[in-house]
Amino acid sequence: MIRANENYSKLKSSYLFADIAKRVNEHQKKNPEAIIIRMGIGDVTMALAPAVIKGFHEGVDEMAGDATFRGYGPEQGYAFLREKIAKNDFQDQGADISADEIFISDGAKCDTGNFQELFAQDIKVALPDPVYPAYLDTNVMAGRTGRYEDGRYSGIFYMDCLKENQFFPELPDEKVDLIYLCSPNNPTGSTMTKNELALWVSYARENRALILFDAAYESFIRDNELPRTIYEIEGAKEVAVEFRSFSKTAGFTGTRCGFTVVPKECMIFNTKGEKISLHALWNRRHSTKFNGVSYPVQKAAEAVYSKEGKVQIRQQIDYYLNNADIISKTIASLGFDYVGGKNSPYIWIDGADRDSWDFFDLLLTKAGVVCTPGAGFGRCGQNYIRISAFNSLENVTLAMERLKKALT
Amino acid sequence: MIRANENYSKLKSSYLFADIAKRVNEHQKKNPEAIIIRMGIGDVTMALAPAVIKGFHEGVDEMAGDATFRGYGPEQGYAFLREKIAKNDFQDQGADISADEIFISDGAKCDTGNFQELFAQDIKVALPDPVYPAYLDTNVMAGRTGRYEDGRYSGIFYMDCLKENQFFPELPDEKVDLIYLCSPNNPTGSTMTKNELALWVSYARENRALILFDAAYESFIRDNELPRTIYEIEGAKEVAVEFRSFSKTAGFTGTRCGFTVVPKECMIFNTKGEKISLHALWNRRHSTKFNGVSYPVQKAAEAVYSKEGKVQIRQQIDYYLNNADIISKTIASLGFDYVGGKNSPYIWIDGADRDSWDFFDLLLTKAGVVCTPGAGFGRCGQNYIRISAFNSLENVTLAMERLKKALT
Repeated sequence: MIRANENYSKLKSSYLFADIAKRVNEHQKKNPEAIIIRMGIGDVTMALAPAVIKGFHEGVDEMAGDATFRGYGPEQGYAFLREKIAKNDFQDQGADISADEIFISDGAKCDTGNFQELFAQDIKVALPDPVYPAYLDTNVMAGRTGRYEDGRYSGIFYMDCLKENQFFPELPDEKVDLIYLCSPNNPTGSTMTKNELALWVSYARENRALILFDAAYESFIRDNELPRTIYEIEGAKEVAVEFRSFSKTAGFTGTRCGFTVVPKECMIFNTKGEKISLHALWNRRHSTKFNGVSYPVQKAAEAVYSKEGKVQIRQQIDYYLNNADIISKTIASLGFDYVGGKNSPYIWIDGADRDSWDFFDLLLTKAGVVCTPGAGFGRCGQNYIRISAFNSLENVTLAMERLKKALT
Repeated sequence: MIRANENYSKLKSSYLFADIAKRVNEHQKKNPEAIIIRMGIGDVTMALAPAVIKGFHEGVDEMAGDATFRGYGPEQGYAFLREKIAKNDFQDQGADISADEIFISDGAKCDTGNFQELFAQDIKVALPDPVYPAYLDTNVMAGRTGRYEDGRYSGIFYMDCLKENQFFPELPDEKVDLIYLCSPNNPTGSTMTKNELALWVSYARENRALILFDAAYESFIRDNELPRTIYEIEGAKEVAVEFRSFSKTAGFTGTRCGFTVVPKECMIFNTKGEKISLHALWNRRHSTKFNGVSYPVQKAAEAVYSKEGKVQIRQQIDYYLNNADIISKTIASLGFDYVGGKNSPYIWIDGADRDSWDFFDLLLTKAGVVCTPGAGFGRCGQNYIRISAFNSLENVTLAMERLKKALT
């Protein structure tokens, strides 16, 4: 009898976006004239930059001629892209990462989800709360948790990120083995300083733990004091993997390309405590279960690092950051506490004692604005909402005018 | 301490293509003038068809304007593509498959590798020998095998495919739960008839087993008596998943798109024997660990089903099938037994008592032709080699002339 992986049955059904859609539809039905502004989902809205489009078309053109056609490429990605990433995103930042430590993939969601496969089933996993749901769900599917009760899975070490600790995950008071960190953070928009990251790198080195560092929103960092990669921290190469994405950097949410950095020094252990190369393990996984990213997509990603590409990409991020600034100022003027909105496209707003779904309903019904209720990201999000800056300036301006009217 | 998934350590290192490369390089060094013809790897050589290129460019153009730009798409794929697949590949064949039973992915290698995640760890897996290595390796990584000894992993039920049984996997004499079948077969090029497939569907229904049916080479079928999909077999929808790919159909090995069919009637079981929807499980996996295929790639795949696209794709397959025919006839004229070469791009050649690596060396050194030694696909491939028809007609003609000289 073919039996199921019963860990899937532990998964809490993901009703978040379905629930949001239901409430939005009901509101629209009652108010057919209402023009609803969606600031919930973290999806880019601007077209791909001209330099990227040019690179993309050129890649397609190469596929049109027998002499320039590309069949199977290297599963790890083409050297032309890996080398540009290594230089621009790491070496130029003072982080000594080489091209063969970079694995091109179809996105950070896939990589952050798949990476846990490399580890034993009974390791202790530490996750921030609130959290990007894919980190948690993929560990549930792998059988690393017990049942879901009272908003949490047993077996997981949750790191509360609240106002009291500036939304910074504190070092655990027990031993953990695998630590998920995300900065600039989704959903809170908070950022970790070099000192904060260094604490975690020290913890990992002392406890033979591993950090999975999600830096998908790195391109939003404008504060030069903030680290742009975990490898700016001394010793991080031995204990950290970094996930990056072109999704938010260059509007690739529908184009699909990202990458993961696995330094060759990074070692994990077998039950005897002997060292195992994490780079070799991920390479085996990547070449067995993945077959490389579409060649024209890799050409499009390469164009992000061209002279024109860099200028155009920066203008796009500036545009979203200006939106974030407008949102933050409005929220502040209305008397709400918030975090994010700087070095990040997200604004995480404290509803004071309001339940996040009540707050969601208030914005929807009074202002026709859709946000994401914080409860969807974990128990610590219960009294928060997330607003995303990915939108047109016109929509953001209109939405903020409506919020001012509705909430004063 | 962060510990590894130690099942990875059971994996036999995959030296096959590295060994081939090494022997080819040595031969080239000794014979710097030699023009080596590579007929080993199953990778397409012809450019994407004009209709596909047109669809691809149009998709890229849409990404260039804010009004037509696409961000995150449905993880399962766009309806425009799923509907065309359902109609052309299934409904027109008399197989009642609907668009929402089709999951678009970045290729059949990924899907055949990932699908085993949905099952309990202690199920009994049945695999043909010879076999496409990804089926086996992903089950090893998941912990479904014991050690590798004498060319085989303990815990796997191997189905010998040899001349004695016309390379057809016979029904097992013990209960198995998960069955991998591939037709037209890689590496043997053999095809399963409706009656043969029907035997397996009956077995699965009687034993509550599941068939994972890999039909990546379906487009090479020209014999109208052969089934083009397992869903032509009565009752298959309850016990079979089908994997398809645009890689060999339309030259997408470097473009990356495929799909998996999971019928809604298909049920697996929990430990209590209660039914669980496989469609719901795969949907959960696909939406948690995957984020959809690049929009322009889906537009390119859609063009495969346009009027011009169908004609152009058929011409490409005809071209490769003509190569296969030339190879088969040459092999036969040289007195070798073989299978495949019809309804398939592969020719599986019996070296009689020759070891497959000896046979490989003979072709390389005497004819400057690279094949794949059968031993790389399993113990039953020990005395065989695989020749691939993916090449230019010129190369194939030249290679066959050389073989005739070398082997007579």
